Amino acid sequence: MTDPALIETLKSLVEPGKVLTDAESLEAFGKDWTKHFAPAPQAIVFPKSIEQVQAIVRWANEHKVALVPSGGRTGLSAAAVAANGEVVVSFDYMNQILDFNEFDRTVVCQPGVVTEQLQNFAEEQGLYYPVDFASAGSSQIGGNIGTNAGGIKVIRYGMTRNWVAGMKVVTGTGELLELNKDLIKNATGYDMRQLFIGAEGTLGFVVEATMRLDRAPQNLTAMVLGAADFDSIMPVLHAFQNKLDLTAFEFFSDKALAKVMARGDVPPAFETDCPFYALLEFEASTEEVANAALETFEHCVEQGWVLDGVMSQSEQQLQNLWKLREYISETISHWTPYKNDISVTVSKVPAFLHDIDEIVGKHYPDFEIVWFGHIGDGNLHLNILKPESLTKDEFFAKCATVNKWVFEIVQKYNGSISAEHGVGMTKRDYLHYSRSAAEIGYMKAIKAVFDPNGIMNPGKIFAE
Amino acid sequence: MTDPALIETLKSLVEPGKVLTDAESLEAFGKDWTKHFAPAPQAIVFPKSIEQVQAIVRWANEHKVALVPSGGRTGLSAAAVAANGEVVVSFDYMNQILDFNEFDRTVVCQPGVVTEQLQNFAEEQGLYYPVDFASAGSSQIGGNIGTNAGGIKVIRYGMTRNWVAGMKVVTGTGELLELNKDLIKNATGYDMRQLFIGAEGTLGFVVEATMRLDRAPQNLTAMVLGAADFDSIMPVLHAFQNKLDLTAFEFFSDKALAKVMARGDVPPAFETDCPFYALLEFEASTEEVANAALETFEHCVEQGWVLDGVMSQSEQQLQNLWKLREYISETISHWTPYKNDISVTVSKVPAFLHDIDEIVGKHYPDFEIVWFGHIGDGNLHLNILKPESLTKDEFFAKCATVNKWVFEIVQKYNGSISAEHGVGMTKRDYLHYSRSAAEIGYMKAIKAVFDPNGIMNPGKIFAE
Repeated sequence: MTDPALIETLKSLVEPGKVLTDAESLEAFGKDWTKHFAPAPQAIVFPKSIEQVQAIVRWANEHKVALVPSGGRTGLSAAAVAANGEVVVSFDYMNQILDFNEFDRTVVCQPGVVTEQLQNFAEEQGLYYPVDFASAGSSQIGGNIGTNAGGIKVIRYGMTRNWVAGMKVVTGTGELLELNKDLIKNATGYDMRQLFIGAEGTLGFVVEATMRLDRAPQNLTAMVLGAADFDSIMPVLHAFQNKLDLTAFEFFSDKALAKVMARGDVPPAFETDCPFYALLEFEASTEEVANAALETFEHCVEQGWVLDGVMSQSEQQLQNLWKLREYISETISHWTPYKNDISVTVSKVPAFLHDIDEIVGKHYPDFEIVWFGHIGDGNLHLNILKPESLTKDEFFAKCATVNKWVFEIVQKYNGSISAEHGVGMTKRDYLHYSRSAAEIGYMKAIKAVFDPNGIMNPGKIFAE
Repeated sequence: MTDPALIETLKSLVEPGKVLTDAESLEAFGKDWTKHFAPAPQAIVFPKSIEQVQAIVRWANEHKVALVPSGGRTGLSAAAVAANGEVVVSFDYMNQILDFNEFDRTVVCQPGVVTEQLQNFAEEQGLYYPVDFASAGSSQIGGNIGTNAGGIKVIRYGMTRNWVAGMKVVTGTGELLELNKDLIKNATGYDMRQLFIGAEGTLGFVVEATMRLDRAPQNLTAMVLGAADFDSIMPVLHAFQNKLDLTAFEFFSDKALAKVMARGDVPPAFETDCPFYALLEFEASTEEVANAALETFEHCVEQGWVLDGVMSQSEQQLQNLWKLREYISETISHWTPYKNDISVTVSKVPAFLHDIDEIVGKHYPDFEIVWFGHIGDGNLHLNILKPESLTKDEFFAKCATVNKWVFEIVQKYNGSISAEHGVGMTKRDYLHYSRSAAEIGYMKAIKAVFDPNGIMNPGKIFAE
């Protein structure tokens, strides 16, 4: 698939050894965490400067070669998969923190800075980078921006979008744009920074980003509550939101908890069995705040919404309570689950979840549905475990039908077919369940503005 | 200028009496708070529904008539001025709050809802709409979105952008788009909602917006501090930000304060004369927070940054301290001031302000410079009072030179020529000081995508 003469011209644009074409590299850098598409790039290139990125993009335009940006490759939608002879542009060698300003609380990052690297840097400054999720140890800032990464603290801190003060991008024509210049207030026309956030590399590549930091949270404290039924979760959320500034409000089902408990390495929160659990977190910055949390808990028990609960009294206990939620995804991966990442507005969550439970239960009573997610922001992770009686192929054939039901219900509730994992290739064909034909038309026209030759991550979000 | 036959066809699209062409209406609805352009629209139309807005836009495309959206007409950049025979589309009859959801904390607003109407509605629900500024009593939500309005609480709550959960827009072709569907998490391609926010009506019209509310702030408390010099303001901001979640951090100069005190209707904060003052606000939700504020104040005095200070002990005192800052703009309007609304990153503010003071003072020693602004977000309002010895024309001729210096210094510090007032027509010719030629080119191309016939508020942000 690789054209040797073409690759030689690419090599001339970067440092020696920074173009790889061996089979192992093509395999490794051609994919993300999804497994549905076979990686087939023709080369991997590792720029070390913005100028080299620009040169690569100009080269790609000249030779009509498609480019795929590559960060930590932890994506779950195949947005960073190169399955069609593309050249992968890896930002692994543009991974430095370039500057820090304590007054502006900003950090200038190259796109290859790993999320955890930024989190740790912030901590060293006595500050906080609040976007956090399971893959923080390998995901990169450029990829976070490309997918507008969310995670477990969105209810308080919002998505990655909220933390991008400014950025430099190289568009599909190789032009360098400096977007927003790190300003808080800037009313000078269209905020194109926002367009590139969540664009999955289809408009251009993020080559530098100034990220904001926040003050460090004080005495983070978690509660795990056992709910009488799913419908009780919503008034519990409401009651706590009226009293506290929550930093997280997660939920998981008894089935999810049972799988985690079966591991044997996490202490139980409490003895009472409940059908659903909520994990909430807040800053117990003063005793008054902690008391308000306890009073609200008691109110929820009196109302019959909550059957039992526990509040962390130490950093260790905080970590242990979080494990009940954070270990779910990895734990259930052994059951080859069908997974879907969807959202609706918070108030619609109970009816939405009920509809999906009902239709799946009716047609496939042997399917075990494991729900968990960021319920404080309406983002549900639907997981269906493969019954032992089915082969993988049989199971995923049935799941294709489930997919259609789920997206129809998403559409019915005016929700999103992808809450935080992006569209990439895995959800491309379902985009019309969430976006109108007119919207998709405008999106394609915007892409043509920034990428007239269609070389920037083509086939992602929508078909070429 | 009005074409009677054409206007008849327009009248057929809306309710009887909802097209005005009398001289008084043309004058009133053809302008905003700027005075630089003579209003000259050919008609004013008042749609009452989204369908009517779509019909008007289709009509405008058919007849190649330019449209200017019109809200509270409180703009300061002439973005809502119709000076060239346009038809003004006023949203005065689309001014209803349509829905409220207590779980999502969202309010569905028609574009003509007045900011204060939304603020009051939120208060009635025990919640809070945090975007606030001098013209909140007449500005409308549609206009706020069009200019991404900021104001006095941005340091804590951000701009209007942060509070738009979703919106319906009519594009320049008359298509209706429902953008983001009020979701918190939605990773389905380009977030076009963000493009329309701050677009000054040049891409389409906002015809409905779902705005988020926040919990009501608790026991808002203000401090006014007298600073030893301007350079001391920044470490004071830094010290307080490290200890408190500030809801505001404003500043003003002794000259600004003197004008307000001369009114005689505001009690002084304290006796000590200082060259600069800071007004900061926070939620004194517990005694511990109030104590942390007092300790920080004492630290600032010990460091020599602060000479005197006062903390509000009552709602009345809070209001009175805010008057010291909020009355400035109206008070100095009697001196026919040259005004400019500019921003840089927070850490650059002292050097930036110094440069402007120096060049203006050197060339025009008789000019009285009055500084105030939202220093916590880097947004400065520069005001120069007209010396009595100069006529208006002489003064504004000299100010044209000042303008150029100011924008050159903005460019030097990588700032924004318009922090929150927008570009409109008044700053259109200076846009290149803040945005590169490439960026302006992309903006024009984006406009062509949504408004191929160039009928949506043409000549605003950039020349046609």
